[in-house]
Amino acid sequence: MQDSSPRVDSPAWLNAIRWNADGLVPAIAQDATTGDILMMAWMNAESLQLTAQEGQAVYWSRSRGQLWRKGETSGHQQVVSEIRLDCDEDVILLKVEQKGGIACHTGRRSCFYRKLEDGEWVTTASVIKDPESIYGKTKGSTHGE
Amino acid sequence: MQDSSPRVDSPAWLNAIRWNADGLVPAIAQDATTGDILMMAWMNAESLQLTAQEGQAVYWSRSRGQLWRKGETSGHQQVVSEIRLDCDEDVILLKVEQKGGIACHTGRRSCFYRKLEDGEWVTTASVIKDPESIYGKTKGSTHGE
Repeated sequence: MQDSSPRVDSPAWLNAIRWNADGLVPAIAQDATTGDILMMAWMNAESLQLTAQEGQAVYWSRSRGQLWRKGETSGHQQVVSEIRLDCDEDVILLKVEQKGGIACHTGRRSCFYRKLEDGEWVTTASVIKDPESIYGKTKGSTHGE
Repeated sequence: MQDSSPRVDSPAWLNAIRWNADGLVPAIAQDATTGDILMMAWMNAESLQLTAQEGQAVYWSRSRGQLWRKGETSGHQQVVSEIRLDCDEDVILLKVEQKGGIACHTGRRSCFYRKLEDGEWVTTASVIKDPESIYGKTKGSTHGE
């Protein structure tokens, strides 16, 4: 659990967020053009502030316990055109341009590639690019979560 | 914290979900026609199973500690056309038809009605219907979260 207490110089818009007990909020990434939902990850105050400053999605990787600059290995950055906040101030929505057209670490466009059909999760989207060719064989998983 | 351990008769598709420590996963509701993101709430195993069975969104209200049948007071049910699962099996995406065209307890179409502009959260969507006329004066907030 990282230290997520707002810094003294945190701007008001950032202090308005209601972080969970771990100092995180869910962040949904939506394709700004097609409206497709690409993924959901988590942000702490620093990652959200960096996202706003840099105009590219920066998440918090819970598994790695560190900032996760989306696309740092894959090149599949998310260029952010809008940052939205929900009525409870505890969920973020990003509208993004997905570089490479691939958001998912499986090499698919969206992480939501499975659909419930007749009591089974059915894969409805194909792999655009082999994850090994995205991340390399020796680097292991660079999946942020 | 409710008992969210899978029941003996839980179907395989439900057991595939990786619930958090509280037995919950985030569930995003997206307008099936326009692609607009309407809200994000939480589900436990029972609420997800009921959503699949009934074809209407049933969430878990963390504030009330009980099942939250979306629209039970407002009439603004969400008719579910698709249930999707992400690559980590820990986020649900619902594609829905939003009855009444209002998903948010503030009387707006979407909960994501604020946008970050020049370091401020700016409201970009107007109230379609006064919440008092949706929920009544004496009932108090029926906001699920």
